[in-house]
Amino acid sequence: MKRSERLVAMTNYLVEHPMELVSLPFFSNKYDAAKSSVSEDLAIVNKMFKQEGIGYLESISGAAGGVKYIPQYSRKNSESFISELCERLEDPSRLLPGGYLFMSDILGDPSIVRDIGRIFAAEFSGVEIDVVVTVATKGIPLAYAVASFLHVPVVIVRRDPKVTEGSTVSINYVSGSSRKIQTMVLSKRSLQEGAKVCIIDDFMKAGGTINGMKNLLEEFNAKVTAIGVLAEAEDEYEDRVVDEYTSLVQITNVDNRNNHIEVRKGNFINK
Amino acid sequence: MKRSERLVAMTNYLVEHPMELVSLPFFSNKYDAAKSSVSEDLAIVNKMFKQEGIGYLESISGAAGGVKYIPQYSRKNSESFISELCERLEDPSRLLPGGYLFMSDILGDPSIVRDIGRIFAAEFSGVEIDVVVTVATKGIPLAYAVASFLHVPVVIVRRDPKVTEGSTVSINYVSGSSRKIQTMVLSKRSLQEGAKVCIIDDFMKAGGTINGMKNLLEEFNAKVTAIGVLAEAEDEYEDRVVDEYTSLVQITNVDNRNNHIEVRKGNFINK
Repeated sequence: MKRSERLVAMTNYLVEHPMELVSLPFFSNKYDAAKSSVSEDLAIVNKMFKQEGIGYLESISGAAGGVKYIPQYSRKNSESFISELCERLEDPSRLLPGGYLFMSDILGDPSIVRDIGRIFAAEFSGVEIDVVVTVATKGIPLAYAVASFLHVPVVIVRRDPKVTEGSTVSINYVSGSSRKIQTMVLSKRSLQEGAKVCIIDDFMKAGGTINGMKNLLEEFNAKVTAIGVLAEAEDEYEDRVVDEYTSLVQITNVDNRNNHIEVRKGNFINK
Repeated sequence: MKRSERLVAMTNYLVEHPMELVSLPFFSNKYDAAKSSVSEDLAIVNKMFKQEGIGYLESISGAAGGVKYIPQYSRKNSESFISELCERLEDPSRLLPGGYLFMSDILGDPSIVRDIGRIFAAEFSGVEIDVVVTVATKGIPLAYAVASFLHVPVVIVRRDPKVTEGSTVSINYVSGSSRKIQTMVLSKRSLQEGAKVCIIDDFMKAGGTINGMKNLLEEFNAKVTAIGVLAEAEDEYEDRVVDEYTSLVQITNVDNRNNHIEVRKGNFINK
């Protein structure tokens, strides 16, 4: 196989297997090439991944060594993506009764969801994460997008137990904004004891749901190492029960009477 | 930029933008290369995509022409993936009371979900599809995986209306297996009139849920052009209310007493 051909195959393989250690002999056998040629190929891939702003290849030396594709999203790409998102969210036709915002079209676009996943995965790439946890239903696509870049599984907390989940652990919690008592359940066999967890959700008001998830995860002795939310409502800031989190956008001013919304960049930008 | 470098960048770009028409001048400007060089690059990419069994590049000629990456999954890859899935599902520890099967671990693995998406997208790549529709919650990750390869949005039917969806259309339907009356709602502004729809779900027993979705979609004058389910229960076959669908696996024999499950390949294999 020629170098040009090998580069196409290797690029595809690495992009499809982020955060996975791939040994040089694996590539060497798969594409019938000398290890030295494979090394040169990987240097070209690494250079171009950096240049395109999508990450880099980490080299791990030694007998059990190889390369690992670490997905990143350049600051420039992230910022222009978030700016565009803010603009789209400020469209007054998104306003719903009660000051809610229609976002299903944005959350329904797989390429937007994938970019959000890439931004969070890049942000959390230095943090120990065994599993991504979200709560049904709107956070689900975001959680999968993040998990696919981190190469970890997704576990979904539900509002109601379902027979197909087997036995479950449940907690009651008080929603931070509506002050209502709500229930959350998690299948017993879905999460290992002591797992390191990244929580992902679409929206955070006062943070009661995320706090509820934290309490539920404590039942599994899990440790929350990262929290990412797509949007946060800024006016709930004072009562917030969750401190450390990363948000991409802040919805700061929802004015139903004058049909006006203001959306700012979230705290991600300042990190 | 050297050919070798261009190939890495172009491969990544095409893999990230399936089913999107990309013009030659776009690549030519982006990588500062002559159109003839870009054409040669694309021929190499096309050859390798075919060889790796992940699809091919379709050339569209004329002034508005360019190339489009059509994702495919080779028969061999699909069959070995499905065989492995059957084996994993036959594990007796998956048996739950009532003859249900625990599948959350499989549905929680982003790379398995992505492969399932690739298989359905390849199967339906010749069908007109404007949007992928699923019902909350287990079908959601599969729907996104399919949609990401087809380059179309996802719309989620819910069991209960939510304030963040705006006004909704709802129907009542009779579940095919439990004979209970259930409700489904779909946000009014989420689906265009007359859209061509691919329905994706994780599991089909008698098909009542999918039939309910079809009825709900009729309210939007939508046309269902494809139906894909990960698993079907074969013993419900006689009462089935849905005829044309593609299933990857068939759960044929769930014997709680003897702790035994049989899982066969679905009808996908015979297509």
